[in-house]
Amino acid sequence: MKQKAIVLFSSGLDSTTVLYYAMSKGYDCHCLIFDYGQKHNKEVENAKKFAKSLKLNYHVVKTSIPWDMSSLINKSKKIPEHKQIKEGFVPSTYVPGRNTIFLSYAISYAETIKAKKIFLGINAVDFSSYPDCTPQYLKSMQQVMKSLKNGVEICAPIEKYSKAQIIKLGTKLKVPYEKTWSCYNGKNKPCGKCDSCKLRAKGFKEAGIDDPALK
Amino acid sequence: MKQKAIVLFSSGLDSTTVLYYAMSKGYDCHCLIFDYGQKHNKEVENAKKFAKSLKLNYHVVKTSIPWDMSSLINKSKKIPEHKQIKEGFVPSTYVPGRNTIFLSYAISYAETIKAKKIFLGINAVDFSSYPDCTPQYLKSMQQVMKSLKNGVEICAPIEKYSKAQIIKLGTKLKVPYEKTWSCYNGKNKPCGKCDSCKLRAKGFKEAGIDDPALK
Repeated sequence: MKQKAIVLFSSGLDSTTVLYYAMSKGYDCHCLIFDYGQKHNKEVENAKKFAKSLKLNYHVVKTSIPWDMSSLINKSKKIPEHKQIKEGFVPSTYVPGRNTIFLSYAISYAETIKAKKIFLGINAVDFSSYPDCTPQYLKSMQQVMKSLKNGVEICAPIEKYSKAQIIKLGTKLKVPYEKTWSCYNGKNKPCGKCDSCKLRAKGFKEAGIDDPALK
Repeated sequence: MKQKAIVLFSSGLDSTTVLYYAMSKGYDCHCLIFDYGQKHNKEVENAKKFAKSLKLNYHVVKTSIPWDMSSLINKSKKIPEHKQIKEGFVPSTYVPGRNTIFLSYAISYAETIKAKKIFLGINAVDFSSYPDCTPQYLKSMQQVMKSLKNGVEICAPIEKYSKAQIIKLGTKLKVPYEKTWSCYNGKNKPCGKCDSCKLRAKGFKEAGIDDPALK
């Protein structure tokens, strides 16, 4: 029988690559999708459709972060359009506690279905300014699992990959990038201006691959 | 100006005592109340009323744990009535990941309003079987704060107190225990049979105090 794994899945470039990676390693993947009031909540429907098309089990966690002031959630704040992200600068799209919230539900799901791995698309290279995307943070969350004695391991296979490396890995794994969604502005088409669109474009350029989502 | 603190608050015996403790220490307390599908969700309304009566800021986080099989949530499972809880035995009321979910929202709230303390009523003496109530667990969550560099400290003042000691402390702090709710069965009156009722009764008995909620 296949070993069970939880995959934090938003149908973005990173988490989709990680999902394909986990599948390629033979895991029985259970997707965890979050509907937390993000402006680009079209990613929720997209992720559900994606998981269904792969015939995977999934759960959508519906929640709200009522105090949140992040521009990713708060409608009175515009998604920023930075020319470049300097190291150490935390963009207004940072949602305090978000990865810990995601991982805490993953712990709950993993303990319930007896999965021993939690895969996530955390990536510390091209977006190092979010404090909950650092290697130290991941290490501390692994210690939480140890203290809970649940035998769960956090797997962050693209943690040290650049966006270009992620895209090259995903292309090898046959990730249908045309079905992924990265844009922070949840409109009909990717805006091309938000940090997420820009990092994606930079990654495809550096990988020497055309982004199929833009065709 | 008073220092801000987040208090995980359910209006139960433990968290109410902790709230009064934090107020007695001069903190500007912001209550965090969880509506997560618990059968005894009358605690949510009770906690809101309580926080309002104390003129405290509060937020209710509404969420669901869709996979949960705990008897505290799952309607097809009966709340158990144990004669005694043996050490190491995890009762069916355990909600996997619950304290981590609670704390992850508290991290988010604390970072947003720049609170430097998170108070919670975790208690490892009379209910040592929940894996997310151990000193090791708390220590590992403190390490998560450190890795996030948010300067937030977890305060668990009754961690090593017996129920009787908690009740004695609360009585000194003038906690109106008649307004607290502990019963896992969210009916009109406490059932007196669930683990939570039994531990409460044992605590009051050992403290030599009558439970005003039963008058």
